[in-house]
Amino acid sequence: MVDIETLIPGGRLDGSVLVDILSDHKGALDNMFVLFSGYLVFLMQCGFAMLTAGSVRTKNTKNVLLKNLLDACVGALAYYLFGWAFAYGPGGNAFIGIGNFALSSYKGEPFTDFTGFFFQWAFAATAATIVSGSVAERTSFYAYIGYAFFLTSFVYPVVSHWVWGGGFLSTIIGGMVDFAGCSVVHMVGGIAGLAGAAIVGPRMGRFGDDGKPNPMPGHSATLCTLGTFLLWFGWYGFNPGSALGVTGGAFNQVQRCAVTTTIAGATGGIVTLIIKKALDHTFDLLAVLNGVLAGLVAITASCAFVDAWAAVIIGAVGAVVYILAAMLLLKLKIDDPLEAFPIHGATGFWGCIAGGIFNRHGSEGLVAGNGQLLLANFVGCLIITAWVLALIVPFFMAMKIAGILRVSPEVEADGNDVSKHGGPAYPVDAITKAEQEAADEIAAVQDV
Amino acid sequence: MVDIETLIPGGRLDGSVLVDILSDHKGALDNMFVLFSGYLVFLMQCGFAMLTAGSVRTKNTKNVLLKNLLDACVGALAYYLFGWAFAYGPGGNAFIGIGNFALSSYKGEPFTDFTGFFFQWAFAATAATIVSGSVAERTSFYAYIGYAFFLTSFVYPVVSHWVWGGGFLSTIIGGMVDFAGCSVVHMVGGIAGLAGAAIVGPRMGRFGDDGKPNPMPGHSATLCTLGTFLLWFGWYGFNPGSALGVTGGAFNQVQRCAVTTTIAGATGGIVTLIIKKALDHTFDLLAVLNGVLAGLVAITASCAFVDAWAAVIIGAVGAVVYILAAMLLLKLKIDDPLEAFPIHGATGFWGCIAGGIFNRHGSEGLVAGNGQLLLANFVGCLIITAWVLALIVPFFMAMKIAGILRVSPEVEADGNDVSKHGGPAYPVDAITKAEQEAADEIAAVQDV
Amino acid sequence: MVDIETLIPGGRLDGSVLVDILSDHKGALDNMFVLFSGYLVFLMQCGFAMLTAGSVRTKNTKNVLLKNLLDACVGALAYYLFGWAFAYGPGGNAFIGIGNFALSSYKGEPFTDFTGFFFQWAFAATAATIVSGSVAERTSFYAYIGYAFFLTSFVYPVVSHWVWGGGFLSTIIGGMVDFAGCSVVHMVGGIAGLAGAAIVGPRMGRFGDDGKPNPMPGHSATLCTLGTFLLWFGWYGFNPGSALGVTGGAFNQVQRCAVTTTIAGATGGIVTLIIKKALDHTFDLLAVLNGVLAGLVAITASCAFVDAWAAVIIGAVGAVVYILAAMLLLKLKIDDPLEAFPIHGATGFWGCIAGGIFNRHGSEGLVAGNGQLLLANFVGCLIITAWVLALIVPFFMAMKIAGILRVSPEVEADGNDVSKHGGPAYPVDAITKAEQEAADEIAAVQDV
Repeated sequence: MVDIETLIPGGRLDGSVLVDILSDHKGALDNMFVLFSGYLVFLMQCGFAMLTAGSVRTKNTKNVLLKNLLDACVGALAYYLFGWAFAYGPGGNAFIGIGNFALSSYKGEPFTDFTGFFFQWAFAATAATIVSGSVAERTSFYAYIGYAFFLTSFVYPVVSHWVWGGGFLSTIIGGMVDFAGCSVVHMVGGIAGLAGAAIVGPRMGRFGDDGKPNPMPGHSATLCTLGTFLLWFGWYGFNPGSALGVTGGAFNQVQRCAVTTTIAGATGGIVTLIIKKALDHTFDLLAVLNGVLAGLVAITASCAFVDAWAAVIIGAVGAVVYILAAMLLLKLKIDDPLEAFPIHGATGFWGCIAGGIFNRHGSEGLVAGNGQLLLANFVGCLIITAWVLALIVPFFMAMKIAGILRVSPEVEADGNDVSKHGGPAYPVDAITKAEQEAADEIAAVQDV
Repeated sequence: MVDIETLIPGGRLDGSVLVDILSDHKGALDNMFVLFSGYLVFLMQCGFAMLTAGSVRTKNTKNVLLKNLLDACVGALAYYLFGWAFAYGPGGNAFIGIGNFALSSYKGEPFTDFTGFFFQWAFAATAATIVSGSVAERTSFYAYIGYAFFLTSFVYPVVSHWVWGGGFLSTIIGGMVDFAGCSVVHMVGGIAGLAGAAIVGPRMGRFGDDGKPNPMPGHSATLCTLGTFLLWFGWYGFNPGSALGVTGGAFNQVQRCAVTTTIAGATGGIVTLIIKKALDHTFDLLAVLNGVLAGLVAITASCAFVDAWAAVIIGAVGAVVYILAAMLLLKLKIDDPLEAFPIHGATGFWGCIAGGIFNRHGSEGLVAGNGQLLLANFVGCLIITAWVLALIVPFFMAMKIAGILRVSPEVEADGNDVSKHGGPAYPVDAITKAEQEAADEIAAVQDV
Repeated sequence: MVDIETLIPGGRLDGSVLVDILSDHKGALDNMFVLFSGYLVFLMQCGFAMLTAGSVRTKNTKNVLLKNLLDACVGALAYYLFGWAFAYGPGGNAFIGIGNFALSSYKGEPFTDFTGFFFQWAFAATAATIVSGSVAERTSFYAYIGYAFFLTSFVYPVVSHWVWGGGFLSTIIGGMVDFAGCSVVHMVGGIAGLAGAAIVGPRMGRFGDDGKPNPMPGHSATLCTLGTFLLWFGWYGFNPGSALGVTGGAFNQVQRCAVTTTIAGATGGIVTLIIKKALDHTFDLLAVLNGVLAGLVAITASCAFVDAWAAVIIGAVGAVVYILAAMLLLKLKIDDPLEAFPIHGATGFWGCIAGGIFNRHGSEGLVAGNGQLLLANFVGCLIITAWVLALIVPFFMAMKIAGILRVSPEVEADGNDVSKHGGPAYPVDAITKAEQEAADEIAAVQDV
């Protein structure tokens, strides 16, 4: 297509060939950067699946794994058919995009937009999967699949259109700034999870007659740790990747994101360790894992714009917000097994506020003398919260009224895996009867 | 080596320096793209290892893990010594490459081919590891290692030479088109697995006296899910990476691959969910995982050439082919614990057919008005199948006759781990005797 | 910032715009390469965590997971505040860097160094985490956190300054050459681990009254395998990434690293398999995993400079060194649960020697007729070893004397998880009492 050797035919530079080559290199760089970042974001699905599986009891392991797998699958078709069109469709307005349903605009000509679709799908699937934790262990399979379709085809795409697709939140009050999806992805997922957890109700026995929570530890702290590391890893696609390119100086943003993301996540973990040690007198691994995630969420709105010292503060406060929100949920007897609302919802809100305060490089917050961004982000978060609640609450309520939101008490007591998924996640693989019979036969033959 | 600042000495553009710089950037881009894609393909080894481990019974866990690890290791040396030479050696013909054994042509001068070797080794190792699942739990260790060496040093390299290295399948009937190894890698692995599974025979007790299969569930659905997610992740190296570069407009192919791969895999999972629910009345996690893999395999031949809507069809049919082939195997009493033949072999065949039908962009199939590709792919698949069977069947039969193909019934009943690998994968780590004695001593001292 | 379309205003090439564009592309390439390599290095934290968890007994799983997580977190803050300044601070001398504490030099202007910080932090965290295995199951939490801070803020940064930051080891005797951190990272971690393991003493009951070791198998060979695969994967960031860029012809080094790393790791695994089979008559999965790691460590100093055939030798000898060192430790009754010293320390030393022998491309060792490098690397390794011991031994001894190095015998017997971390890693999730009560209530209601 472009050939470097033809650049100097007869000893003279051919400018138009040069432009073609440079454009090709630029396209290669940006596409490669966004695609590999998107691959890392996709791996967050695996991270969430492991974290969720480790956080539930053995008897629901296959159930949550299947839900996590399917929100990626259902999300792919939903986003392909509808989501991308509502988010970035060419014929849109300040509220919603319209057009290019099922990627119909790309029919064979040279194209440049599949990369964008891929990256944005990975984000949509992330928003969806956050909820699986909040409603784990008692929500019906159909309800969850319906929810995942609804979120990835409509609820989330519209929000992303508002903030990133030229919608009204990108302009009012000077424009909301959420670099990588602190509100668009995490808060949307966290708020939806809160609504789901509240409406579906707590797991049987989660709160005693005295209103105090009974511990219901998940079945594997190792899986939780594996999942969290994979999420942290994936965040390097999520945050730096949100520069949506690496040329034109964007690599300056990208590298800043890598550092601020690291520092905020690390600080979130350390602060959580200290607070939980003071409160509970244990070094609480599971809380520290969540604290790291809270730090990562908190920096997501501002990662490209803040100094490293600000990342320390943002991560530390993120951990505090997460812990307080988690305590509040228990007071309210809302059972969120993964603490998805505290980590993604409440801390997501804080992350946008933090951007309004600490942004200094390419976006200006309070510390750069501009108070307007704080207001824009605050108002934006309220509007997004209202939007999500306005759609998700009726959705879950309708399912509840129809009696299809929650599994039966029997299924919940026995566990979803045995009831719905054909058997336990970890079968006791003692020698099976048939195998024993075969072994006996062989032994009998050999004895002869 | 090249210095941008010397580009304009004395204010004049130096064209030859410019060409050097642009060539350097092109080399950097393409090498980086292929290497990172290759890293992802390598991680599929980890994915297969986790999937296989989760799919077998506890007593054979270490055995299958070691086999999976060793096919990567043995494959590296085999491909280094022989495979690369047979696949892409410079002095070859239409049947086989010859030359550059042990990378001997690269002895110190500037070089550009290590990247290619690395990427192709990762593919060879993938082909090998597919088989480990088919023959799991009863095949002897030596037989497996011998097989892995044979496949990666000769069987697979020759096939890759035919299709990708300028061999006869790239030219006859207009040329077979298998973009990323649907037949070259997956079908080769799947066919070899089928041969192995059939010749080694079913696991003890797998089929009852009435011929009906007894369930032998693997020991961890979580490991299966982890493995499948890692495989899906690695597929983004496998399929887009097969553009073998990202410059010269190749990024258009690359991004198309990322999207079609996603959509086909997702569709494969959803269609499998629906069919299995209809057949078995359960939401079968393990089947859905396999359905995702079937969708991913199915798109592998055509990912760079088809529209997104075609990816939906290809993935959906891939799931059907997988399910039917799995049912057929059970009818035939062939015990393939990982369903590697249904997923990689049968669906791999379908994937090549699908390319012959749906290719439209850069390669033309039926929908673009060209029936020849369908024929070329069909014939190519038959020839590849015949080649693999002609080599692998005698190989496994010879081992069977020599009595070294299968472990003894005692070893199979007890499990390979205890018999051959020094103990179970998950030791019961109650306080050891020695530790207890030490604790007693300490307690005694303290009591004094 | 730079715009390709402005390159030819009025039909004339604008040279300065061209230089800007090319510089931008070069910056994008190098930043992207180093960042993505750094992401892979970060994932080695996950690999180490899984490997360590699998290698300890169930009762200490959460403890080692939390330590692994925290050395990344503590390391991030320590390296941010101090480590980066001591390693690469602008106002340094032959011994240490000074300046840019807390990244204070980067305050808002265009910047290019966050990428370097990120990559080097990932290396510092790797050095720290190696030790967690050596001292696992009996070292106190505070002692470990203190150690991690000390190593990442001072001990390791100074060594990296000596070798990579313009310090004296980069110049004396012609200059030590350690491409990717065979001594700087692995040997530092391995030596520190040896000191820790020796000073903290063996686990209770690890050695019998007769001085012979009692087996204390870890609780999951699957986790060990997962961890090793993730480490191998991460090594492709660690070794090729140490070219610190991909332009200017660096992609030649990069691709060589990918191949030599693969071959050395694979050979290490195979040689270990054979030796252990000869010695112990088992196919020892865990030893083979460690053998792969030993091969990977061994090539780390020389990966960019040696031929593929040399990688075979380096990996094979690396496996031998690992096995001998592991046997020596047992003779000395030093309990290193992860064999971190044999793998990273002893084999790290061998790797630097190997570079002095086999380097041929861009760095010349014995095979290229230059004996000086061997001496420089040998002396350098001795100096680094002395430095680490001189700092770490007093550190651990002081803690031992203060009585805060080791957990109490009761805690060790019960396990750290129950004692310090709020409960076991894998709770027995039988239906909890409260849940059972709730189920009973529901059943009672339904009976009415």
